[in-house]
Amino acid sequence: MENSDVDLDGDLAELRVKLGDRLITERAAVAPFERDSSRTVFAGEALALVLAESAEDVSNALAWANTRGIPVSVRGAGTGLVGGATAYDRGLIVSLERMNAILEISPRERLATVQPGVVTADLDEAAHAHGLFFPPDPASVRTCTVGGNIATNAGGLRCVAHGVTSDWIAALTVVLADGRVMRTGARTRKNVVGYDLTRLFVGSEGTLGVIVEATVRLESLPPGAPVTFWAEFDGLAGAGGAVTEIVGSSSRPEVLELMDALTVQTIEAVFPSGMRIPRGALLVGQTVGPDAAAHADAILAICRAHGASDAAIAANDDLVEARRKSNPALSARGLKIACDVGVPVSRLAEMFAGVAEISRQHGIEVASVAHAGDGNLHCKVAAPNTPTGIAAADALIDDITRLALTLDGTITGEHGIGSVKQHELAWQLDAVALDVQREIKRALDPRGILSPGRAI
Amino acid sequence: MENSDVDLDGDLAELRVKLGDRLITERAAVAPFERDSSRTVFAGEALALVLAESAEDVSNALAWANTRGIPVSVRGAGTGLVGGATAYDRGLIVSLERMNAILEISPRERLATVQPGVVTADLDEAAHAHGLFFPPDPASVRTCTVGGNIATNAGGLRCVAHGVTSDWIAALTVVLADGRVMRTGARTRKNVVGYDLTRLFVGSEGTLGVIVEATVRLESLPPGAPVTFWAEFDGLAGAGGAVTEIVGSSSRPEVLELMDALTVQTIEAVFPSGMRIPRGALLVGQTVGPDAAAHADAILAICRAHGASDAAIAANDDLVEARRKSNPALSARGLKIACDVGVPVSRLAEMFAGVAEISRQHGIEVASVAHAGDGNLHCKVAAPNTPTGIAAADALIDDITRLALTLDGTITGEHGIGSVKQHELAWQLDAVALDVQREIKRALDPRGILSPGRAI
Repeated sequence: MENSDVDLDGDLAELRVKLGDRLITERAAVAPFERDSSRTVFAGEALALVLAESAEDVSNALAWANTRGIPVSVRGAGTGLVGGATAYDRGLIVSLERMNAILEISPRERLATVQPGVVTADLDEAAHAHGLFFPPDPASVRTCTVGGNIATNAGGLRCVAHGVTSDWIAALTVVLADGRVMRTGARTRKNVVGYDLTRLFVGSEGTLGVIVEATVRLESLPPGAPVTFWAEFDGLAGAGGAVTEIVGSSSRPEVLELMDALTVQTIEAVFPSGMRIPRGALLVGQTVGPDAAAHADAILAICRAHGASDAAIAANDDLVEARRKSNPALSARGLKIACDVGVPVSRLAEMFAGVAEISRQHGIEVASVAHAGDGNLHCKVAAPNTPTGIAAADALIDDITRLALTLDGTITGEHGIGSVKQHELAWQLDAVALDVQREIKRALDPRGILSPGRAI
Repeated sequence: MENSDVDLDGDLAELRVKLGDRLITERAAVAPFERDSSRTVFAGEALALVLAESAEDVSNALAWANTRGIPVSVRGAGTGLVGGATAYDRGLIVSLERMNAILEISPRERLATVQPGVVTADLDEAAHAHGLFFPPDPASVRTCTVGGNIATNAGGLRCVAHGVTSDWIAALTVVLADGRVMRTGARTRKNVVGYDLTRLFVGSEGTLGVIVEATVRLESLPPGAPVTFWAEFDGLAGAGGAVTEIVGSSSRPEVLELMDALTVQTIEAVFPSGMRIPRGALLVGQTVGPDAAAHADAILAICRAHGASDAAIAANDDLVEARRKSNPALSARGLKIACDVGVPVSRLAEMFAGVAEISRQHGIEVASVAHAGDGNLHCKVAAPNTPTGIAAADALIDDITRLALTLDGTITGEHGIGSVKQHELAWQLDAVALDVQREIKRALDPRGILSPGRAI
């Protein structure tokens, strides 16, 4: 583990005493941990990487960095899209990928306790063995980690039915910037003891502390198989109206996704599965539980009433699987720069229309896909991989983001702020809220070592 | 409005310029606002009362108090049970009861925007007109206010199905200690912009700011009438086992309440309705929606499998209404000192058994009633209204509270900490969490004027 490339000075040696070979300094070994899955963010060259195996490792690493004012980036699987986990120049990287144990599943309490590095799908599958599941399911569910989901308050396809990650977190163990370890929350459904520190850390994107253990809620698996349904619309107005009525009905689906024609066409071009290209938009969803088929029928009736040109129950879940491939498909065709705005569900049709208009104005192709049931829209923009191309795409994304805000929306529904959306923060938050965030940050991390310059 | 009893010094005159006759200083008019519904808490004699009619009034009042270091108590309807809203000696009282407008109901977005002083049941009923309802329903729903519900993260009977107040709050407008006004949250279902300031203020019991407006989520009213069911058990172990299985099943009820024999007997004695006294416990609940009857049948089958001596669907909802009278009934018979512990649902039977044992040890009668579906238990203790009697009841409550913690529980499920449970805080929270709470408080309210000495 000795290293000749990096100047292993006395300070790092001191950390080495605590961490042994969990402290990595070889450039070649450190470099893969310096970037996340964002495309345009500059990543620094880190001083060292900590492959933490325990809360104590994390505590030692942070205490060391805090004393020296060294910036720390924190990462699970590095699937983030907004530069929240990229390294700082001469910074320390804390990776939680080795802390991937499922410590407990309690079927009686429908709780699981996990280390932060457990892959989200692994937790979900372990819960299945007990007739339970873990509802949050970001598209990256097979690679992302529960700790990362919590740090970013991740969303996904099932949010229309089950809410977001924060709705499923009962308790956390967190290491603070100075190395102190704190427990938050409780195992009970209700708990009103002091401030909701659990929720303060959920979505704080590594700026307030490092999550080293989480107790999460599980849900009972609904009986039977899910029923997949689809509806084609000639225009987006009808689809938007249908979605608004569906989520307000008593037949609320577990999944409700809307893709524009360009998205469907691109998925079919890259991963052919016989999907028909709609004129306007394709709505795809799933219902679950004992009345899944009846609920799907009720949803189809709503779609037809809103002008669906065709609508039916599908023989299998291929359409949902195809939907999950939209990101790689669009990226493969050069539609790489993504945004993550949200609007009230009732404003979705207006949002889609506005995006089409913005695309026309900029003369740049945009593909849109939405977690329609919760109003969360991902627009992917064609961008040649040049500074000019990326700048043009970013300018278009800025216009989409401003449009979402005029429709009572949000600048980010599930990806977070990270480094990428810093410039948008003041578009949504008022000056006092920005100040309050900084005051909280200062109170918990006075030296500002944790993910500085990100999230807030 | 002039006043001769109180020394209206130059400072108060300055506030009077801003507030006019919304500033009250007559002792007789101020006194009714000095206490909440807690029984054993000393209330101070306030300097003045602000009957705020706008965010600006609240801002002016806080800025004035902050400059002078004057402690502020904040109140909605004063239904709190833990001394969270009692006045400070020479303090300022900010009452929000006049800010009781429902500003907007948006059926399309299933959102309502309200002032904090709106009575919870009034919001719920206004939503009914649009086929919607507001799920949080503390027992005091007809008198308590939405602002108070948010400040305490109130619970209630429907939490087993719909969660707690924090699950239904989309956005807040808050006045900070120094009078600055801040907006938090968004109208979208997903929103991960910076820290979750909304959730930080929910349950902060008036220590971080004053909520002057809230945008809350509404839910679609289920079709049809609710179905009420009941099951009698000879002992509490069987009832506890049934509850655990019911909440893990796909027939989860909207209400699931458990009363011990003493509670049922007392309700029947005070408000006779023909309720039969069970040997051990009575479980009462409701299912809703199109399959309400089938779900109730499934629940009854679970009860019988767990040894219910009798179980059936009720002809009406009298039993649920009787349950809502447990508090006044028990109080009328001298069982006045209450606690509000929570345990994981699977530990309820142990908790009931432990409470019975503690009651025996202390030689004091205890009646228990639980929001069984979420493990939240209210024990009411017989206490003569003397210092000795109250001290003996408090000692018993302390033992019950410690028992809840040994069962992975919480010291308060829905009432909050207020003044009453200060001494219990360190039983549940570690030293670091206590520090972090104080650090956050200091960051947002550096002069410590907002509800000092409470909640954290």
